[in-house]
Amino acid sequence: MTGIRPSRQGETFSSRHVGAITGDRGRMLATLQVESLTELIGLAAPADILASVEAPGMPPATDEAGVRHELAELASRNRPGRPLIGRGYHGTITPAVIRRNVLENPSWYTAYTPYQPEISQGRLEALITFQQMVEDLTALDVANSSLLDEATAAAEAMLLARRASRATSSRFLVGQALLEQVRTVLAGRAEALGIELVTADLTDRNSWGPQVERGCFGVLADCPDGHGRVWNPAALFDAVHTGRGICVAECDILALALIVPPGELGADVAVGSTQRFGVPLGFGGPHAGYMAVRKGLERQLPGRLVGTSRDADGIPAYRLALQTREQHIRRDRATSNICTAQVLLAVMAAMYAVWHGPQGIRAIASQVHRRTVRLAEGLRAAGFGIGEEPFFDTVRIPVPGGAEELWQTARRAGFTLDLIDGDTIGISLDETVTDEEIDQIIGLCGDGPTGVCAPRGADAGWEWPTALIRTSDYLTHPVFTSFGSETAMMRYLKRLADRDFGLDRGMIPLGSCTMKLNAAIEMEPISWPAFADLHPYAPAVDAEGSLAMIADLETWLAQLTGYDTVSLQPNAGSQGEYAGLLAIRGYHRSRGDDGRRVCLVPSSAHGTNAASAALAGMRVVVVASDDGGNIDPADLAAKIATHADELAAIMITYPSTHGVYEAHVRKICRMVHDAGGQVYIDGANLNALLGVARPGEIGGDVSHLNLHKTFAIPHGGGGPGVGPLAAKAHLAPFMPGSPVGTTVEHPLADGGTVRHTGHPVAAATYGSAGVLPISWAYLRLMGLDGLREATGQAVLSANYVARRLQSTIPVLYTGANGLVAHECILDIRPLTHDTGITVDDVAKRLIDYGFHAPTMSFPVAGTLMVEPTESEDVAELDRFCDAMLAIVDEARKVAAGDWPAEDNPLVNAPHPAPRLLDDEWSHPYSRKLAAYPGTAASAARDAEAGLHVNPVTRIQAKYWPPVGRIDNAFGDRHLMCSCPPPEAFEEH
Amino acid sequence: MTGIRPSRQGETFSSRHVGAITGDRGRMLATLQVESLTELIGLAAPADILASVEAPGMPPATDEAGVRHELAELASRNRPGRPLIGRGYHGTITPAVIRRNVLENPSWYTAYTPYQPEISQGRLEALITFQQMVEDLTALDVANSSLLDEATAAAEAMLLARRASRATSSRFLVGQALLEQVRTVLAGRAEALGIELVTADLTDRNSWGPQVERGCFGVLADCPDGHGRVWNPAALFDAVHTGRGICVAECDILALALIVPPGELGADVAVGSTQRFGVPLGFGGPHAGYMAVRKGLERQLPGRLVGTSRDADGIPAYRLALQTREQHIRRDRATSNICTAQVLLAVMAAMYAVWHGPQGIRAIASQVHRRTVRLAEGLRAAGFGIGEEPFFDTVRIPVPGGAEELWQTARRAGFTLDLIDGDTIGISLDETVTDEEIDQIIGLCGDGPTGVCAPRGADAGWEWPTALIRTSDYLTHPVFTSFGSETAMMRYLKRLADRDFGLDRGMIPLGSCTMKLNAAIEMEPISWPAFADLHPYAPAVDAEGSLAMIADLETWLAQLTGYDTVSLQPNAGSQGEYAGLLAIRGYHRSRGDDGRRVCLVPSSAHGTNAASAALAGMRVVVVASDDGGNIDPADLAAKIATHADELAAIMITYPSTHGVYEAHVRKICRMVHDAGGQVYIDGANLNALLGVARPGEIGGDVSHLNLHKTFAIPHGGGGPGVGPLAAKAHLAPFMPGSPVGTTVEHPLADGGTVRHTGHPVAAATYGSAGVLPISWAYLRLMGLDGLREATGQAVLSANYVARRLQSTIPVLYTGANGLVAHECILDIRPLTHDTGITVDDVAKRLIDYGFHAPTMSFPVAGTLMVEPTESEDVAELDRFCDAMLAIVDEARKVAAGDWPAEDNPLVNAPHPAPRLLDDEWSHPYSRKLAAYPGTAASAARDAEAGLHVNPVTRIQAKYWPPVGRIDNAFGDRHLMCSCPPPEAFEEH
Repeated sequence: MTGIRPSRQGETFSSRHVGAITGDRGRMLATLQVESLTELIGLAAPADILASVEAPGMPPATDEAGVRHELAELASRNRPGRPLIGRGYHGTITPAVIRRNVLENPSWYTAYTPYQPEISQGRLEALITFQQMVEDLTALDVANSSLLDEATAAAEAMLLARRASRATSSRFLVGQALLEQVRTVLAGRAEALGIELVTADLTDRNSWGPQVERGCFGVLADCPDGHGRVWNPAALFDAVHTGRGICVAECDILALALIVPPGELGADVAVGSTQRFGVPLGFGGPHAGYMAVRKGLERQLPGRLVGTSRDADGIPAYRLALQTREQHIRRDRATSNICTAQVLLAVMAAMYAVWHGPQGIRAIASQVHRRTVRLAEGLRAAGFGIGEEPFFDTVRIPVPGGAEELWQTARRAGFTLDLIDGDTIGISLDETVTDEEIDQIIGLCGDGPTGVCAPRGADAGWEWPTALIRTSDYLTHPVFTSFGSETAMMRYLKRLADRDFGLDRGMIPLGSCTMKLNAAIEMEPISWPAFADLHPYAPAVDAEGSLAMIADLETWLAQLTGYDTVSLQPNAGSQGEYAGLLAIRGYHRSRGDDGRRVCLVPSSAHGTNAASAALAGMRVVVVASDDGGNIDPADLAAKIATHADELAAIMITYPSTHGVYEAHVRKICRMVHDAGGQVYIDGANLNALLGVARPGEIGGDVSHLNLHKTFAIPHGGGGPGVGPLAAKAHLAPFMPGSPVGTTVEHPLADGGTVRHTGHPVAAATYGSAGVLPISWAYLRLMGLDGLREATGQAVLSANYVARRLQSTIPVLYTGANGLVAHECILDIRPLTHDTGITVDDVAKRLIDYGFHAPTMSFPVAGTLMVEPTESEDVAELDRFCDAMLAIVDEARKVAAGDWPAEDNPLVNAPHPAPRLLDDEWSHPYSRKLAAYPGTAASAARDAEAGLHVNPVTRIQAKYWPPVGRIDNAFGDRHLMCSCPPPEAFEEH
Repeated sequence: MTGIRPSRQGETFSSRHVGAITGDRGRMLATLQVESLTELIGLAAPADILASVEAPGMPPATDEAGVRHELAELASRNRPGRPLIGRGYHGTITPAVIRRNVLENPSWYTAYTPYQPEISQGRLEALITFQQMVEDLTALDVANSSLLDEATAAAEAMLLARRASRATSSRFLVGQALLEQVRTVLAGRAEALGIELVTADLTDRNSWGPQVERGCFGVLADCPDGHGRVWNPAALFDAVHTGRGICVAECDILALALIVPPGELGADVAVGSTQRFGVPLGFGGPHAGYMAVRKGLERQLPGRLVGTSRDADGIPAYRLALQTREQHIRRDRATSNICTAQVLLAVMAAMYAVWHGPQGIRAIASQVHRRTVRLAEGLRAAGFGIGEEPFFDTVRIPVPGGAEELWQTARRAGFTLDLIDGDTIGISLDETVTDEEIDQIIGLCGDGPTGVCAPRGADAGWEWPTALIRTSDYLTHPVFTSFGSETAMMRYLKRLADRDFGLDRGMIPLGSCTMKLNAAIEMEPISWPAFADLHPYAPAVDAEGSLAMIADLETWLAQLTGYDTVSLQPNAGSQGEYAGLLAIRGYHRSRGDDGRRVCLVPSSAHGTNAASAALAGMRVVVVASDDGGNIDPADLAAKIATHADELAAIMITYPSTHGVYEAHVRKICRMVHDAGGQVYIDGANLNALLGVARPGEIGGDVSHLNLHKTFAIPHGGGGPGVGPLAAKAHLAPFMPGSPVGTTVEHPLADGGTVRHTGHPVAAATYGSAGVLPISWAYLRLMGLDGLREATGQAVLSANYVARRLQSTIPVLYTGANGLVAHECILDIRPLTHDTGITVDDVAKRLIDYGFHAPTMSFPVAGTLMVEPTESEDVAELDRFCDAMLAIVDEARKVAAGDWPAEDNPLVNAPHPAPRLLDDEWSHPYSRKLAAYPGTAASAARDAEAGLHVNPVTRIQAKYWPPVGRIDNAFGDRHLMCSCPPPEAFEEH
């Protein structure tokens, strides 16, 4: 932290972030008969976890002007320059129409994961367009809607290959030119699961032939490879297939516009990154990795898959397909722990393809390639011995003994080349590079004349064998050619956004997902070129500002959580979990405790916990809950006894996934510690602890945090996520090291530094560094006091909702004094029992009331978990409670026989406008009741409160669901994960 | 132009700006049976105006990356620093939630003036909130919805006073401390109209007493005055009232939070600026000036006034009140030529008040004042002889002989103070200044210790007489206290935006208003601090980048229009007209031709022309049109003969306001020139000329341009406007000079420079400089070729629409070969005659079809003028034509008796959703036909074209009008221009 600017005036940012305005809080506290937030927390949480939290590294809160000033100062210390480093990351031009209308538009970035497809049709259409784009460019049948980055996508492909291959070998073949970050991430995954990574020169049959002969369950063929070479993997794939292995191609998405795609070369799977499709470098992320598979493997795909189905009126509609594969359902049988995607970034990449269309994408690829040819020819003319190896956008220049000097010369001219070793320089071009710059580089490299090489004509052919020149079409769907003007594109993006329900419309009370405010001032810096255009492998001197910000964040997060050190590398919560468990494994092994592989997981745990444990090579043993939903100490003791020497860890969530501060958490931690196990505290519910308690003090050895939940990074419609790992010092050596072997010193909470030297879990050292300014700004704006206030208000809001509803809808679990923590589980099962109205009906009817449903059937089937967060004001909380109560009334009318069980506003919900305007209306309730339910009650209270200019604008706008209830089973039976042809919509 | 960055690749920006995508243009050309845009223009326009336009100063077009790079370079040459200059302009903190969700949101900035109130309810609510804010803070009864800036607001107040006063004097009294820019703008207005400005020390009865005794029709009392003094004008107002004069107070809006407001001191009128309410300095503009009046003067208010009325269902609704006052209706009887407001900026200021609320505004004002006290006390302690005069935020420091040195010292520390003269420094504080900075300044000023002055406590009272301490409440309406959290504010802004129809939803085919694309890349730089935070009176060295940009713009615009020199000062088209006519007057007078005061105006001219002429002291003589709508040469000759020696000028619009390239324009210009008159060519229709013809070559001596029409500055929902003046060299000396006496050299189109030394027409030398990056970027991106293409496409699109419709709806005027220029007038009168369906019915029914209506009844009553612009694609043009044809079909059903005249979808349009969902539906047409008209036809064509992913998202989203048809007459009978109380909405 440097250059602190004092706050402008008394007003604090936390008063803007926290929803309760003057008067609200008093009324809420009175409802609960407590005097203060402190008193409330004291009643709800066990005394032995509450602490006087201090974070000496955090300066006092600043305000908007102050944080903007400090961010500008940090930005001024970054020098993105002109990185021509490549290695999987490329400069790109984000079309301004996409930057402004997607990346900077709260309608897109505040949306939640599209689990409620009826109110997510806009981004589902964008995501299926992403899938179509990947399917087209890879020439494979089914693509998912993104993965975390290229390296993790490669790792997922290795796991997929292992699952899908009928080969018995545990060997997986990779190329010796593989990008270092992909190799190191693969190595970590492989080691945890007992996979043997074997390496060969994949361009040379003499090298790979013997390896394939010895057997392997799959191969990862990178083409262009890590050296930039374009080569033909067809023979390799044939050979691997012969051995029943699975063939994975790792491809540059832009190169696929020109090079024969993997689907035409026999690949079963393709993976890569879509970063260079308009997504800023961001010092490493976030951006969308991709994976596509041939038909037959689609049910093996990790991550999320968007498919089509139909709604209750038979209208085609999008939704997430094959949800039953997801780890929150499969738990320990899960094959991947991926539970987030990179939706916002996948949308950007898809819209980049929509914007440029097939001709534009081809033109960009051609230009990049032609300019690389110009560069190569210029360098040859200048006397460099550039070989004749085919390339796409990257050349390697032999400079025996002079690489360092040449690199420095280029630096002085503003270019950062890839210093491969003392004798070799790499140069990788992208769409931002101009002919003039190429000539400038040629001039820098030698004494030769500049500008000697005219670019080749359009028909000159490419630099690789004819057999590898792509002839097949791509991006042929009309979506890729219909929005060529900015006016048309802007409107398309708005129409899509208008179909979705984001935080900009109303509360998204998702239990365990903490849909709090993503303040504009926090979001602004991620668009600034100083943060957006930084290459992840830029020299540290170019990234001073970002590195200072990262050091701040590591220090602040460690101090806030009571740990010693933090890694920001994991780019999703699941990756944080995985990395944390790997650290525990590493720790035990370092002590000779290789047998400690049992991971205790409470029965209420999020499914990802179990999946992560499995991926880390652990065995999951479930611990039972008691009637109150808490961990059963007796069962825990029994399980510990049974698995004594095998006990590696327990994974707990605190407050529990039941939304309660469990009373015995410290005791549980002690029991595990006493048995030689480590304690993993899942940070999902940290929003109920910040400023009042610290997981590291409660007994945790390691936690992952969720910057996208607790620390204001928006959910982006289903990603990005950032899942830092926080741990005690003894685990530090086993925390994720740099994926490219850079030595990094991390600050310790109490001063000094430490190195993390475990296996990397993401392609970039700092993961999704591009969105870290959001959390940094959030912490600078809130300060410790603000965080404490937010925690208190989050708990107050949850208890206020619980109190208002509990006499009508039971709150399933409560803790001390009948209080919940920051969320509450509303038990809909009694209502279902009495009226036949299901939790699904309630969730869909909430759409008619203008709400996104709470979390459905997690952690308990038939319930709704509500987390209002601190950012909602009491007017919105009341609107929600009123809606829930009105829905119960409606359900009772069904039970009373006023409405038939098969025809009532609940089972028919949501009600799209066209249905309501049919001439025929045979339903036993009115059209107005369908569309504007509960208006009278709300209006009455509003009038009483005397609050409003115009009650319509004061309270809400009618949100019209774009489709009716979607038939999930139909979609899964008729799996279709590409853009539907126009005719699909014809009848409607 | 410096630092040109080459374009990235073949793709041009113009292909994104121009709507027609591959295939579109060919189809459109074929419809008109022409081969190319060039051929079309050749057929439509007379040969003697077409020219081979060159603009040697304009570099070739660049692309998005290029223009961003160049803008960044220009930005890097600005150094906004910490300006403490004041003089009517103050630093402010734009809340990020407003910057992102209003200033940077196309839903707000692309909207048109709210002439169709049913689809403008969002910004009308925001504007009535602005009015309420001004009414509250000034304690006057009725405020308008903004004026152009403080100086023009003062000038309008002077004119209002002259109209409203029953005093016979032509003298207007102003204070001797008046801000220089206000004084010079007033002086220009006064001179043109024969008003005598007299000056006195308004704080000294001995000074003003004799002046009031001599008689004056009004006084402008500035308080705090231009020296920063707070004083009591009550006695002055009494005296002026006694003489039947009108009392105008000019007040700092923030000071009014603490100082007794003008309405309580007897003022009839108050004017000022709302810039410091969250609107960036922008090197002078745009921001919203304000004017409020006491009851009884409301019908004298210039500019726009938002009022309430009710819709067809009796629901309260907002709309522009007293429209019949507007100059386009009153023409030469108009009392003001103001026809634009600063809507976008007024919305920002209003939302700043909503965000901070009464407590926040008071806290900001208090803090600014207390810090000024801290400064004054510190300076006194350091030995400066600061007097005891009461102040709010500005102090004057006597530094005999040392002012320059002190000023330089402060500069070195980053502060720009106000160098008043060699002996005096002014320092003006704003909400951005911190205590630390104040102490730093004190330290710079003297040897005294820093930080000696603790701020006073809250109850220490202010620095002015008790009688001037405000005790009355303000901002008491609930709107100012309901949105205190960012979440609530973000949603309120979205709800308001959702009620409006902007370019982000669909075409706004407004004839003469050129609603073209406002590209995101053009809009981005206006938020950059380097452009946004520049003070208008900053030293030139701080504004190098902006000045370079301005020089580029002046050169490019002059070359494109065929003139010699350009002034960017006029901050609206009307101000450009006024300035142009003043220049003509000045020219004639300089030649001893003071008698030349007759301004010929064709009968078809926009009403503003006549109003501007009147304000410039000219007499309007109307020239008749012939049957074809063209100027009648015979009548012109007759009028010239009649007014021979009095002829000052003719004002023509080219292409004509009828949307036609008149054949004889050159001849007309020659006739006027031969008679010694000057030719003013209104640039409203320049979009049909750029790149193919130049008004300066056709015969114009002077033109105003509209950067907000032709050059991509968005309409902002009804402002800002930018109306530069372009003229031949002989008029240069009479063009607007600097309002603060700065000597400025303007580039001449062919090299060299010239000075403009006429009366200023706006408060800042470069008017709305803050939005000039938009037009600069537009021109850099389009290049001359792109502009030519845009012109051709605009003409093609207008002719395509005319051709598709003309067999059903007559096109009123056409030119050569039956072609129109860039717009066409659809004559609805025959339809009205045959069916009883009026132009109003058609316009409102278009809302149901998802369109903003074209211009209604201008220039011919009973018609619609359609200007599609170059930015619409053929799909949208077809959608519009289909809608028009379907509406005609609907009207024919009325004529055929299928539907009664008083109950059909046209007279009932638009149809809000709640009405459609009533249980009762007694209309003779279906609910679906009401809400989704014409769907079948569109869908059929869409399917045929095979274009779409999802026809709904491909073509449009249903836009639901928030209210039904609004009763204007009711609103004017019950004039209500403040936020309605909550109860107003209760019954509905």
